Amino acid sequence: MATPVKVYGPPLSTAVSRVLACLFEKNVQFQLIPVNMAKGEHKSPDYLKIQPFGQVPAFQDESINLFESRAICRYVCEKYADQGNKGLYGTNPLVKASIEQWIEAEGQTFSPPSSLLVFQLVFAPQMKIKQDENLIKQNVEKLSKVLDIYEKRLGDSRYLAGDEFTLADLSHLPNSQYLINGTDKGEIFTSRKNVARWWDEISIRESWKKVVEMQNSPPPKSP
Amino acid sequence: MATPVKVYGPPLSTAVSRVLACLFEKNVQFQLIPVNMAKGEHKSPDYLKIQPFGQVPAFQDESINLFESRAICRYVCEKYADQGNKGLYGTNPLVKASIEQWIEAEGQTFSPPSSLLVFQLVFAPQMKIKQDENLIKQNVEKLSKVLDIYEKRLGDSRYLAGDEFTLADLSHLPNSQYLINGTDKGEIFTSRKNVARWWDEISIRESWKKVVEMQNSPPPKSP
Ligand SMILES: N[C@@H](CCC(=O)N[C@@H](CS)C(=O)NCC(=O)O)C(=O)O
Ligand SMILES: N[C@@H](CCC(=O)N[C@@H](CS)C(=O)NCC(=O)O)C(=O)O
Repeated sequence: MATPVKVYGPPLSTAVSRVLACLFEKNVQFQLIPVNMAKGEHKSPDYLKIQPFGQVPAFQDESINLFESRAICRYVCEKYADQGNKGLYGTNPLVKASIEQWIEAEGQTFSPPSSLLVFQLVFAPQMKIKQDENLIKQNVEKLSKVLDIYEKRLGDSRYLAGDEFTLADLSHLPNSQYLINGTDKGEIFTSRKNVARWWDEISIRESWKKVVEMQNSPPPKSP
Repeated sequence: MATPVKVYGPPLSTAVSRVLACLFEKNVQFQLIPVNMAKGEHKSPDYLKIQPFGQVPAFQDESINLFESRAICRYVCEKYADQGNKGLYGTNPLVKASIEQWIEAEGQTFSPPSSLLVFQLVFAPQMKIKQDENLIKQNVEKLSKVLDIYEKRLGDSRYLAGDEFTLADLSHLPNSQYLINGTDKGEIFTSRKNVARWWDEISIRESWKKVVEMQNSPPPKSP
């Protein structure tokens, strides 16, 4: 059996869970290495050697060490092209270009307001950090405008990049999951007909259900 | 001769100039289609058909229509793999993964504070928008921390992704150009030895000099 790849970081992190969903889609064995963020392990000198920005995830496979969740997903799709979901990263250049376009739209346009809202609405209360109501309001507005454009796109196309579920859709799962199921702002998604239909389709994928299950399992005991 | 590809938007836009630099590197003929942003042409119904987010650039090549500058660059490198700079997007999977990692670092970590600073320090004064001193200060700090990490990387490696100039370095040119040559904050770059050396190497590429020349030419007269 091939040596499993290594993923560093907790499944509760959106960027880590993006990579995990991709690994499940591609049927790639992995070993999850805990990084205790509450104890600041992601800023330790040893960890910074593999992730110089001091963030999760980090990733290792044979001779390569990588960071940045979307870059890790692309690598996994290229390296393990012949297994699991073979269409995840496209099989022809035009579809691939469309996938890249929507991965970029996610990273550049969807992620900034949605990550901010996940932090403010989900993590800040857990960390006893005071919420910034003004910032929340501004970013609900920003995300709503982004989802108006998605609503139109998803009226013309079953998935973002075309007829098939791809890495572009997958990249949206982590933040959407928190906002729809963990906050009172889910109706930004569910009130938009096509976005709601799309969310229903992408969130019931086996790969994503496995990630959510990992998120809901108790974390390994710290020593 | 092949039909030139079309790029919509002004070369002064950082996202447009990223695509132009890539086209020059790859020796791909293009036609630049003006979009008069002062008149709001980027929000017109016709333009929104090709760029639904109402931003520049948009791009057309034969049967494909694309937006998002980094996705356009990837497409150009794949489609025109056999011409111009053949190593721009890597020629083996490990180098390609490293390029993707650093394109993501640019888009996710370098670009947010540097785009904000370019807007506040270069465009806001031209548009007679009041500068936000607090925001400027915060983002100078953010960008400085990012460049500390680049300084270390560029001490170990000539370019970001390895020994060769790639799309990862190219992606940094547009914002860096404005900050280094158009503001009083250039020393965030030039005070860091390896970052300064890297900037000297990447900014004198013929491709980039052509883009800067386009930026400095008078824009086409509006009708
Ligand atoms: N662009 C990075 C973002 C990684 C990121 O923001 N990770 C968060 C958790 S989701 C983190 O490590 N935060 C701790 C910190 O930034 O100090 C990626 O996609 O991998
Ligand atoms: N992520 C996009 C960003 C495009 C972008 O922000 N374009 C700016 C000019 S550099 C723009 O069109 N701004 C006008 C607006 O957002 O209304 C890309 O890389 O193509």
